[in-house]
Amino acid sequence: MNFASDNHYGASDKILAAVAGIGQAPAPAYGNDPITARVTRRLCEIFEREVAVYPVINGTTANSLALATLVPPHGAILCHAEAHIAVDECGAPEFFTHGAKLVQIEGADGKLTPAAIEGALKHFQKGFVHHAQPAAISLTQATELGTVYTPGELKAIAAVAQGHGLKLHVDGARFANALAGLGCTPAELSWKSGVDALSFGATKNGALAAEAVIFFDPKDAADFEYRRKKSGHLLSKMRFVSAQLDAYLDGGHWLENARRANGLAQRLAQGLARAADVTIAHPVQANAVFARMPAAVAARLRKAGALFYDWGAPADGQVLARLMLSFATPEEDVAKLIEAAA
Amino acid sequence: MNFASDNHYGASDKILAAVAGIGQAPAPAYGNDPITARVTRRLCEIFEREVAVYPVINGTTANSLALATLVPPHGAILCHAEAHIAVDECGAPEFFTHGAKLVQIEGADGKLTPAAIEGALKHFQKGFVHHAQPAAISLTQATELGTVYTPGELKAIAAVAQGHGLKLHVDGARFANALAGLGCTPAELSWKSGVDALSFGATKNGALAAEAVIFFDPKDAADFEYRRKKSGHLLSKMRFVSAQLDAYLDGGHWLENARRANGLAQRLAQGLARAADVTIAHPVQANAVFARMPAAVAARLRKAGALFYDWGAPADGQVLARLMLSFATPEEDVAKLIEAAA
Amino acid sequence: MNFASDNHYGASDKILAAVAGIGQAPAPAYGNDPITARVTRRLCEIFEREVAVYPVINGTTANSLALATLVPPHGAILCHAEAHIAVDECGAPEFFTHGAKLVQIEGADGKLTPAAIEGALKHFQKGFVHHAQPAAISLTQATELGTVYTPGELKAIAAVAQGHGLKLHVDGARFANALAGLGCTPAELSWKSGVDALSFGATKNGALAAEAVIFFDPKDAADFEYRRKKSGHLLSKMRFVSAQLDAYLDGGHWLENARRANGLAQRLAQGLARAADVTIAHPVQANAVFARMPAAVAARLRKAGALFYDWGAPADGQVLARLMLSFATPEEDVAKLIEAAA
Amino acid sequence: MNFASDNHYGASDKILAAVAGIGQAPAPAYGNDPITARVTRRLCEIFEREVAVYPVINGTTANSLALATLVPPHGAILCHAEAHIAVDECGAPEFFTHGAKLVQIEGADGKLTPAAIEGALKHFQKGFVHHAQPAAISLTQATELGTVYTPGELKAIAAVAQGHGLKLHVDGARFANALAGLGCTPAELSWKSGVDALSFGATKNGALAAEAVIFFDPKDAADFEYRRKKSGHLLSKMRFVSAQLDAYLDGGHWLENARRANGLAQRLAQGLARAADVTIAHPVQANAVFARMPAAVAARLRKAGALFYDWGAPADGQVLARLMLSFATPEEDVAKLIEAAA
Repeated sequence: MNFASDNHYGASDKILAAVAGIGQAPAPAYGNDPITARVTRRLCEIFEREVAVYPVINGTTANSLALATLVPPHGAILCHAEAHIAVDECGAPEFFTHGAKLVQIEGADGKLTPAAIEGALKHFQKGFVHHAQPAAISLTQATELGTVYTPGELKAIAAVAQGHGLKLHVDGARFANALAGLGCTPAELSWKSGVDALSFGATKNGALAAEAVIFFDPKDAADFEYRRKKSGHLLSKMRFVSAQLDAYLDGGHWLENARRANGLAQRLAQGLARAADVTIAHPVQANAVFARMPAAVAARLRKAGALFYDWGAPADGQVLARLMLSFATPEEDVAKLIEAAA
Repeated sequence: MNFASDNHYGASDKILAAVAGIGQAPAPAYGNDPITARVTRRLCEIFEREVAVYPVINGTTANSLALATLVPPHGAILCHAEAHIAVDECGAPEFFTHGAKLVQIEGADGKLTPAAIEGALKHFQKGFVHHAQPAAISLTQATELGTVYTPGELKAIAAVAQGHGLKLHVDGARFANALAGLGCTPAELSWKSGVDALSFGATKNGALAAEAVIFFDPKDAADFEYRRKKSGHLLSKMRFVSAQLDAYLDGGHWLENARRANGLAQRLAQGLARAADVTIAHPVQANAVFARMPAAVAARLRKAGALFYDWGAPADGQVLARLMLSFATPEEDVAKLIEAAA
Repeated sequence: MNFASDNHYGASDKILAAVAGIGQAPAPAYGNDPITARVTRRLCEIFEREVAVYPVINGTTANSLALATLVPPHGAILCHAEAHIAVDECGAPEFFTHGAKLVQIEGADGKLTPAAIEGALKHFQKGFVHHAQPAAISLTQATELGTVYTPGELKAIAAVAQGHGLKLHVDGARFANALAGLGCTPAELSWKSGVDALSFGATKNGALAAEAVIFFDPKDAADFEYRRKKSGHLLSKMRFVSAQLDAYLDGGHWLENARRANGLAQRLAQGLARAADVTIAHPVQANAVFARMPAAVAARLRKAGALFYDWGAPADGQVLARLMLSFATPEEDVAKLIEAAA
Repeated sequence: MNFASDNHYGASDKILAAVAGIGQAPAPAYGNDPITARVTRRLCEIFEREVAVYPVINGTTANSLALATLVPPHGAILCHAEAHIAVDECGAPEFFTHGAKLVQIEGADGKLTPAAIEGALKHFQKGFVHHAQPAAISLTQATELGTVYTPGELKAIAAVAQGHGLKLHVDGARFANALAGLGCTPAELSWKSGVDALSFGATKNGALAAEAVIFFDPKDAADFEYRRKKSGHLLSKMRFVSAQLDAYLDGGHWLENARRANGLAQRLAQGLARAADVTIAHPVQANAVFARMPAAVAARLRKAGALFYDWGAPADGQVLARLMLSFATPEEDVAKLIEAAA
């Protein structure tokens, strides 16, 4: 029973078949192949506008390259205190940006508010050469705590960004899950709400190792291609990454996978909530369930075979368990976990 | 008829099957899985000693991470004037090393000699703070011109390295081809000849996107794992890269592929050499053929459907054509090219 | 009436005379001169042990080079939320360390506590490749709020550092002021209390542009000299910087200057405290006075000719004024300010 | 008898007096003072146009900051094989540019030719993401071998630069010596000949530690101020650097100093040329004399008390001695050296 992470699961049959189907025939290298071109076309259609698309292998890279393209070395990036870019990437954004500063801002349920961003910006004087210069806001969608930003919330934050001349980046490692949860269109959840660049995730939702950096205004892509090459992230046989994205986007496979994971999360949350000692700590809006429970209950779940992470250190004898649901989590695992918690 | 690059071809059936065979079941992420462990064991056996093994996605990354681990920011790396790290990686080694200097040294047939290295070292005063400090020599094996270093040649260069306190790195994007050409053991072509670190290539010889950085003394690996993570090259589903290496090494698949490519190169070189106007410019010791021919002959080959690169600008009406052979080049393509050149 | 910053004042007569006294005669360049050697000897005596000494031109450089020497690119540096390195150096430490992360920790009166540091460390898992690895604590002495760490407080923080394998760095831009305030020995306020590296300031206390980076264990200096050169901070005519430090240390000039500034701070604080509307916000332990006052009073002081900065944005109609005292602040300016506030 | 380097000499009386004259009175920090403003005005007059002026402490910094402002991390900088930026700055330009590549080009008498530059550019394919992208040419004026580029030569190189979209930077550590040698105007030797940015040296010609980065089109300065701050090169008491430049430029002091050094170089070269065994290796056009002589003669000169560097390793029993003349070299030293060589 693996609830440890959605990146523990393998890849979907459809995506694996697409990769294997490429075979050994030759094709132009470094992304100049028809499959990569088709992925761009698909994403232009899905997002209802011309966008610049760059496949990469994972989320850390997507985030770091996107931010390094948008933010100068003397810039600052505002993000949530628990953002993956700030906490779980070993300083990759600082490396790719050549030393920009991440400003970590607290916020309930893993989310930033316009007021919190405005408060943080007060510490930085524009044009004052001693201060790092805020250049971008980076949001996570769905957040590290399994919540989502609505288009309305994005627009409010985008207004702050525009007021201060900042770019708005979204770490969409779980963009599909957010979208499936909200039921709006990809365009509404991105550029129509003021998003400038998106790390469009696939790895956690069925791919082997594939994400796409998307700039909604291709001019923002600037020297992205040189940055990708110089950091070792341009693959010679790029079509093996692109084929994953191609199958992922084909026929709504990406949303189907996300809906399945989200649905299991709802079922799990409802089931756990019925247990006497368990409370759900954050709204379940994507594919994560955060459940607060006595340490003894957590131990019992683990004894029953469940893998999951404690989120932070236990306090008052209570554990905050993070339970991730995947496109491939077996339904019976959810049922068994609920049963074990009861 | 694709002779443009061995990285234009896809992946071998065996490797694709291994990838697809992983399926969607969960496993520990970030390389803590059984397949990655098995790759390390295989390479320890193949190289006849305990080695540190780190899978990555391509050669630029393998080279840059290996060199950044061995060379400080104020260091210098000595390499051939045509080395891939110096010419074709857009400054990736400079980025990963935080500004180390590449010293490009001329040498016939794409190879460095001990004398040429000693000559270059004369320009750098040890401990003189104004000079970048030589810290590593990087050789390419097989070289960019399709030649190879013998164990004896490696030992002579390693003696220079040791005399000056330098580490010896080998860019082995085509290590299998070199080994197949020489017929010695992997150990003889690496640590037994003084090599400290090897970028062990698989992508050009049958994999989708997989190489391994090998440190023959695991102590040299130092903070490699942090560098890999911080540069976005640690994959969550690492087993999809490791599975490629696993299948590549299984049952001698890697050497079989290399022998096939090398054999085709010999056949092609011999065939072309019979053409009146064509001369083979460099010894054919791996899977590349460099053929000098009148521009008109090159045009004729292209008209017949052959893809290949001119190496440098034409001079005196002569083109230097680089013809790469792959594990997957059809035999009939070789025959057709020879015929077209005749 | 300049209370804006102690770096607004010029240089002391003694130091200027030492610089001018060098004249035009030749001497070995790049710090291989007798004056630089004498500065090292002086500092060894003053700190009662063999120390490694490197003159540089300012505090940002001293801090950044010291930290880059102690902290790897994947490292993290723990400091106060208002630390100069975090707030006022435009990301210089991130640039020099090649992307290390600054962890900003809150603390009353500009000071860190062992408990606050331990709390921050809980967010970083040792050896976990996804987390930046804490490598150093950096304290400011005297702090940005004019307070000081006692030897006892330093020792308690050093115990935390040692327990976690961290180096302890002190930004001593106002080290002389802290020392003059505490009345202990330089050794007690540094290595005897567990400090590994010190940015020893002189610029704010009488020099033109001179600080010294001091490593109390010369082994910690590692490749400092290459970092200094590579960042442009090795001066050919280094003796013009060293001469400032030489005069600064000669005959206790440094402590005399600091005592004068501290004494004026005490006098100013006591005078202002007598004003009905003014309260002193932080203990006055060095050469800074933070005074909270109605905006109208602040305006009156400025109208009387006083220059000073508001510290943060006004709240509830109150301004927090930072009033810096210098070795060269005229006594009558202090008297006039007190009078204007009354 | 110090002929080792013009940076071994101290500072001129006039410049030292200007520094000492600042005293201890307060002034705005970080270059917002009247002296710094006056330096900018002086340079605008001297160069006959509006220019952007940034004082820094030395040539390595001036070069590195100028180049980092003009060249992206994926860029390449073309320079002479013996250029100071390539040979004597420990990789500072690579550090400041975040990993750009220096392309070292051979050329007689320390000078680049348009043809040599065009030849080097052939190795870089524009827009080809695998190649570093040439972005600037950097010339040294006067060169490392004591020769100068005429305005005509500059214009020919600037035409190459413009044809390829490159910026033209001049390392003018000895710009005054070049100008004094040529007798043209500062404008003719810079922007009127196509120079975009100049490291305007003063340290080697009478200052303590002062240079100015000059951008002839202020738009090219871009984010220079943030780069200067982030690298620790913005001084709080900047007026102590600016005062050096102010006195240097006042009343033609800079050209007077340069003319004296150049005149001594002519006298020394003519004197040495009369010695049977000595030949002058490069045209003497500034303040350096390169004299080829038997090792025995070099030893005799050193025995007589002369300090100088061998340029490269001795060959065929001959030493190539570099003899630098300074604004402050005593006349009798020149006479004594000639006598010792006779």
